[in-house]
Amino acid sequence: MQLKGQLLIGQNGVNGKGAAIQAIDPSTGERLEPVYLGGGAAEVEQACALAETACVAYGETPLELRAAFLETIASEIEALGDALIVRAMQESGLPRARLEGERGRTCGQLRLFASVVRAGEWQDLRIDPAQPERQPLPRADLRQRHISLGPVVVFGASNFPLAFSVAGGDTASALAAGCPVIVKAHSAHPGTSELVGLAVQAAVAKCALPEGVFSLLFGSGREVGQALVADSRVQAVGFTGSRSGGTALMATAQARPQPIPVYAEMSSINPVFLLPQALQSRGTELAQGFVASLAMGAGQFCTSPGLVIAQAGAALNTFLDVVAEAAQAAPAQTMLTPGIHGAFNDGVGVLAQHNSVRTLARGQAGAGPYQCQAGVFVAKAADFLADEALQAEVFGSCSLVIECADEAEIRQVAAHLEGQLTATLQMDADDTAQAQALLPILERRAGRVLVNGWPTGVEVCHAMVHGGPFPATADARSTSVGSAAIHRFLRPVCYQNLSQALLPAALRDDNLEGRSRLLDGKRVL
Amino acid sequence: MQLKGQLLIGQNGVNGKGAAIQAIDPSTGERLEPVYLGGGAAEVEQACALAETACVAYGETPLELRAAFLETIASEIEALGDALIVRAMQESGLPRARLEGERGRTCGQLRLFASVVRAGEWQDLRIDPAQPERQPLPRADLRQRHISLGPVVVFGASNFPLAFSVAGGDTASALAAGCPVIVKAHSAHPGTSELVGLAVQAAVAKCALPEGVFSLLFGSGREVGQALVADSRVQAVGFTGSRSGGTALMATAQARPQPIPVYAEMSSINPVFLLPQALQSRGTELAQGFVASLAMGAGQFCTSPGLVIAQAGAALNTFLDVVAEAAQAAPAQTMLTPGIHGAFNDGVGVLAQHNSVRTLARGQAGAGPYQCQAGVFVAKAADFLADEALQAEVFGSCSLVIECADEAEIRQVAAHLEGQLTATLQMDADDTAQAQALLPILERRAGRVLVNGWPTGVEVCHAMVHGGPFPATADARSTSVGSAAIHRFLRPVCYQNLSQALLPAALRDDNLEGRSRLLDGKRVL
Repeated sequence: MQLKGQLLIGQNGVNGKGAAIQAIDPSTGERLEPVYLGGGAAEVEQACALAETACVAYGETPLELRAAFLETIASEIEALGDALIVRAMQESGLPRARLEGERGRTCGQLRLFASVVRAGEWQDLRIDPAQPERQPLPRADLRQRHISLGPVVVFGASNFPLAFSVAGGDTASALAAGCPVIVKAHSAHPGTSELVGLAVQAAVAKCALPEGVFSLLFGSGREVGQALVADSRVQAVGFTGSRSGGTALMATAQARPQPIPVYAEMSSINPVFLLPQALQSRGTELAQGFVASLAMGAGQFCTSPGLVIAQAGAALNTFLDVVAEAAQAAPAQTMLTPGIHGAFNDGVGVLAQHNSVRTLARGQAGAGPYQCQAGVFVAKAADFLADEALQAEVFGSCSLVIECADEAEIRQVAAHLEGQLTATLQMDADDTAQAQALLPILERRAGRVLVNGWPTGVEVCHAMVHGGPFPATADARSTSVGSAAIHRFLRPVCYQNLSQALLPAALRDDNLEGRSRLLDGKRVL
Repeated sequence: MQLKGQLLIGQNGVNGKGAAIQAIDPSTGERLEPVYLGGGAAEVEQACALAETACVAYGETPLELRAAFLETIASEIEALGDALIVRAMQESGLPRARLEGERGRTCGQLRLFASVVRAGEWQDLRIDPAQPERQPLPRADLRQRHISLGPVVVFGASNFPLAFSVAGGDTASALAAGCPVIVKAHSAHPGTSELVGLAVQAAVAKCALPEGVFSLLFGSGREVGQALVADSRVQAVGFTGSRSGGTALMATAQARPQPIPVYAEMSSINPVFLLPQALQSRGTELAQGFVASLAMGAGQFCTSPGLVIAQAGAALNTFLDVVAEAAQAAPAQTMLTPGIHGAFNDGVGVLAQHNSVRTLARGQAGAGPYQCQAGVFVAKAADFLADEALQAEVFGSCSLVIECADEAEIRQVAAHLEGQLTATLQMDADDTAQAQALLPILERRAGRVLVNGWPTGVEVCHAMVHGGPFPATADARSTSVGSAAIHRFLRPVCYQNLSQALLPAALRDDNLEGRSRLLDGKRVL
């Protein structure tokens, strides 16, 4: 398929007139064709107007059609074949196997949301029938369902060019909720974005949906990204990226005449607690597992283990020796973009030069232009507690090990942590008491608590929470991965005393759709 | 019971040192004893520290105990007897029957949340069991529940001194969710607040809960209110009041290092659409119903019908004639506070002097110092569409009737509306087509859509939505009335690979509590 370098606005391909965007192959530094001219105010206006026009009709699509649409997107992405994988490899430096896996995850996610749409539990249907005889006042017939918020803007993420990008989790869950989506493509992978965008565009046409259900814009963060968030027709935002990027969008969304929710997944250092018995009994294994998790994908995951906490002593020293050896042997890996590589080096440099931090190990130096040289650093708990800057995320294979004097200091470090996506306990049975003491502290600070695993790897399922208190995300009440992500794009509406003809079908007495509903607060199937 | 004029911080009564607060009997203008000296930074610190200390223990209380606590609060409020009603009458100018009804609503609401706590659906329990054999990668055991957000600050509202105040809907739902609550009392009814606060305090002691579960502070909006919202330990805010007050709290909450959710219920003019056949067939009845709804409680309701929309013509003129007659006969009623009375007169004055607005009727002038003289005004749709200021809420018995040229202009007015708590259709069977055309417009702008009723009167039940897009509330995804209000104060946490011993009881395999759970996405009872 020939890339055209065009924005996709509804069913049209549109040539931008703004600044040129061109992907760079980070393994070589070479520029990749074609050039994408960015959109501006005109394209933002067109996309928003189309989305607004499509909003009511798409929000009321029969659930079967909406589910089929999500499945059609998955099929269309698969139909792109190897061209998608090849282009994504060029634009991201990520290996084939990873991108093939990510494509599978992306399509599986779309199909999961198709099943969620069909099941319909997200509608949260409630009926409180009229009580005309009630004293002192009668009760009216009251019914509730959830409806879509309206047009949603999704920002593609650099680190998952498929699964958190044009047709990733934010788009899939917003479309599942019945919201038109306008994607602001990440400038690091425009070709991948165009290919996936064409797949979504084709699915819209095949399912005969209003064209405004989907648009894909290229352009600058300010002229296109911020302008979309500021547009009065947009009703919610999905974002995965940096803390500075996410907080800037939050500020724009709050400064609107009508503030809107921003679901920004931003910054997490994913603390791992090595409890004493586990450290004693399997320190070597833990060290190898840790370095493997840290090195995976050059550490370019929201859930990379950026902080390790343990009690100082012989067992920790043994752990550190093995970590040092493994980390030093870790080969350099190409990072996603020159910008990410630069930020990684800056972050590692701050740690390396910090008075209270010692460098435990650096990985192999790279040969290519933008390669990640892993870094593991060590600091004492007292120093960590004294300097907020040591909690800053360094995106990439970089981690800081905190030596604590005792169990109490471990808890102090836990209580001092900012909001996190994950918190991990490495523990043996004899560590249970200490784990139980830490658990309530960690639950309040993280969206997901793991035992005896590593935080990288986020399962797409019903029980997943990929979220957590600020700054991990903008809104701890939500998840951006898993079926519960659909709730981010819905709001409740109550209907009082509507005739059967006026009521939405799912709330009518006949319940022809056979939905599970809450009748006077009791579930009725 | 002798009022002490003290702040309640945990189990202690504390004398403030700030500016004096004293209730005024709005029917006479007289000051009521005792004087309440406001709290300051020290009291905010004490209350927040206690709430933080209580947070984990209270969040993990057995649901039966938490439900019993809510029921005990209701019993303790009832045990206050007539002293509560008498004091509330003095402080609010509201009549006995209304306050007795409001007490019933308040206690009923607490008992409803007790039943919601026991039923436990709000925990949204999910289990995705491990799949150790899955290819290419095994799946870990993943479980999810919802936990309390943490300490919540509730602002008492002036217009419901019981049901939206110290132990009102925000407090009841936050306590139900497992959050400690710090109430900032409304300065208009400190005595009522102290009485109810003492009832809650007694319930905390009777149920042997940590004292930090509840505190009640008096003081200024800035020194106490804003300081509470800015405190790092506070995790959410409930507020019912003015648009300026609510948006100020939203700004404070967003400016924190860790932004937090604000549930502010602020401003709504509750449009009522009189569709042609209904207007034709029962205009007189509609006019009488409208004036009755408008005059009720001096219009001091969030859901007072402040806007009426209909097609110009003979039927509307007849309606207006009856409205004018009924409104002119409407007796003056004492308003809640001198401030509210002043703001009402200002708002009515703006309409009366507006070039495009004509005064249809004013009610009876009052004899007391702070009495509401109802006002009904009329404007043309074109003028309404041209001036945003005509959408400003005038809190009290004041309404603006919009004359539209045709059906299309009615829809234009609907589409022009800001976010609302309610939207009402007065219709006959022959109006169904027009209603169906309006419904999708109104659903997107209001939390509740009514047919052939009046928006005043908000049922406390499972299907209620007392919410809506900004500026009706700060967060359209929520309701502040009804059992779904509990969701405002919860967030999901995922547990990966935890042992049965570490898992919360509700998520263990044995399910000893017998909870309904989602197993691999399917509901299992």
